[in-house]
Amino acid sequence: MAILGGASLKGKELKEVLEERLFPVKKLTLVDDDEALGQLTDFEGEPAFIQRVAPETFTENDLVFFASMAGAFTRAHWPQAAAGPAALIDLSHALLDVPEAVVRVPFLDEHLQPPASARRWFIVPHPAAIALLTLLVRLQATGRLRQVVANVFEPVSERGAGGLEELQEQTVRLLSFKEFPRAVFDAQVAFNLLPRYGAESRVHLEEVEDTIRREIERCAPALADRLALRVLQAPVFHAHCLSVFVEMESSLEVSAVEAALRGERVAVLGAGEAPAAPVDVAGRDDIVVGPVLRDQKRPATFWLWTVVDNLRLTARTAVDIAETLAG
Amino acid sequence: MAILGGASLKGKELKEVLEERLFPVKKLTLVDDDEALGQLTDFEGEPAFIQRVAPETFTENDLVFFASMAGAFTRAHWPQAAAGPAALIDLSHALLDVPEAVVRVPFLDEHLQPPASARRWFIVPHPAAIALLTLLVRLQATGRLRQVVANVFEPVSERGAGGLEELQEQTVRLLSFKEFPRAVFDAQVAFNLLPRYGAESRVHLEEVEDTIRREIERCAPALADRLALRVLQAPVFHAHCLSVFVEMESSLEVSAVEAALRGERVAVLGAGEAPAAPVDVAGRDDIVVGPVLRDQKRPATFWLWTVVDNLRLTARTAVDIAETLAG
Repeated sequence: MAILGGASLKGKELKEVLEERLFPVKKLTLVDDDEALGQLTDFEGEPAFIQRVAPETFTENDLVFFASMAGAFTRAHWPQAAAGPAALIDLSHALLDVPEAVVRVPFLDEHLQPPASARRWFIVPHPAAIALLTLLVRLQATGRLRQVVANVFEPVSERGAGGLEELQEQTVRLLSFKEFPRAVFDAQVAFNLLPRYGAESRVHLEEVEDTIRREIERCAPALADRLALRVLQAPVFHAHCLSVFVEMESSLEVSAVEAALRGERVAVLGAGEAPAAPVDVAGRDDIVVGPVLRDQKRPATFWLWTVVDNLRLTARTAVDIAETLAG
Repeated sequence: MAILGGASLKGKELKEVLEERLFPVKKLTLVDDDEALGQLTDFEGEPAFIQRVAPETFTENDLVFFASMAGAFTRAHWPQAAAGPAALIDLSHALLDVPEAVVRVPFLDEHLQPPASARRWFIVPHPAAIALLTLLVRLQATGRLRQVVANVFEPVSERGAGGLEELQEQTVRLLSFKEFPRAVFDAQVAFNLLPRYGAESRVHLEEVEDTIRREIERCAPALADRLALRVLQAPVFHAHCLSVFVEMESSLEVSAVEAALRGERVAVLGAGEAPAAPVDVAGRDDIVVGPVLRDQKRPATFWLWTVVDNLRLTARTAVDIAETLAG
């Protein structure tokens, strides 16, 4: 087994989930780009070094995870991997350009019916796509969904360790009225809300929006047609928040919405409970939703506040896919 | 003329706008609660002290602004003021409970037709209510609005100097892994997004939501029925952001939406321009909107990203009202 992007935030989280889930791993190779070479880490108590990509990375492994934060590293190496015997699990969204790669969320298999593919190439959706798919397929089962309007708040950890450092450094410098770094976002992310990054940013929020939209479309085209989506950058280190407005074809009780949402990997907070915030969900595998709010005047519409640990949900879904392959 | 809450963020901003607009003021009395007594400030280059509320505050002034951040100070003193000769302009939303008080945005008078009242008691709407009213009455004129879904991001300056200090202090302490203060929000506001404050907070986000909703309803009941609203607390010092999704009855060109929105007190950013963020609008009187985005598949729906300097828009609208009274 190999993790490409083994030194990234996603790669490290993936390693942790594999350990926690006691996933049967004969040998784990952690691979990353030159910057991370030689870094020492550990797996199941044994020391492990970050290595360079080599021809044997793809001939000797039967499972390869692509866990870099951006897609470039995946795009550089996946053709080599695809030529070998390995099943591929992509956490970087780069394989979205490959039609044979299947976008998959195993705990939603019964709803999403992933397309049959001759290849064992899988894409782990963006955490907000996983959350939206989960909420929407379950709501769909209660009656016809008319429309969904979702605002997704991206945390800086989606831009990797560089994103975390830039928010922290900007914060410290702004508080002492100094010039601040903008290498990652090319914009002030601290104490601000951004609908777009600066022009010089290597990644753009439009691309994140496009990724989420395409992943939902690949899994559930009928739902994608009913979804209006906007992605905003929040000055938050970890966890995605989603402010989701749902309009059904006809009125529905709050309790019916709660009952529909409940199920594997979803925690629904009741009317009396305090809603979760990003800092509340660290380390959780589940999607935290609620309390579900309904407008008295418009009883077919609901607000679903939703929070997920982004790195954790991504890593857990990748391991879920690996478990279906192993089983 | 008197400003009650003269030491508050709103009171100070109001004083600045009165000076800038060269509003004819014979004598300005700045009044606040005991904490602020004796503070030195200035008005048109003359020193001015914050004074205690006295009987003559209400007998000697023909215009009284209620500019405290929370409504309690207004509620304590407005009956005294109402018994005197003064026109009252409330920036604290407390007079919403008084049916004769008129919710007013002068530059929208032609659209909103404020109810006639025997009293000269006015309420300045919440900045998000002003922004939503402005966008919606202008869109309404282009064709029938079907539905509006608005997420409003409240900055900490709406909770006064205490809110600003708490965000700053939480930020500094979190970065050094220390316990942090929570007297204002009773929750972690730094590096977080909150759908609700903690139970011990003196103000609650539900009340802010309720204020915005009621103010829109008082001005434009037909629009209020079409509006779904959610208020979220962002770790931002100043300026409101609104992520507004609009569904019209039938499809419309982006250029038609832009043309409808343009007008007094609104700046519309074009497709090629970078959208504004909170840190971009400091000191601006106008409502900054755009670029307007349309979904190709659903040409009757639009996203309108909107940013306003909250204190400035509030103070400017209060002075607008004062100017209509003076004229």
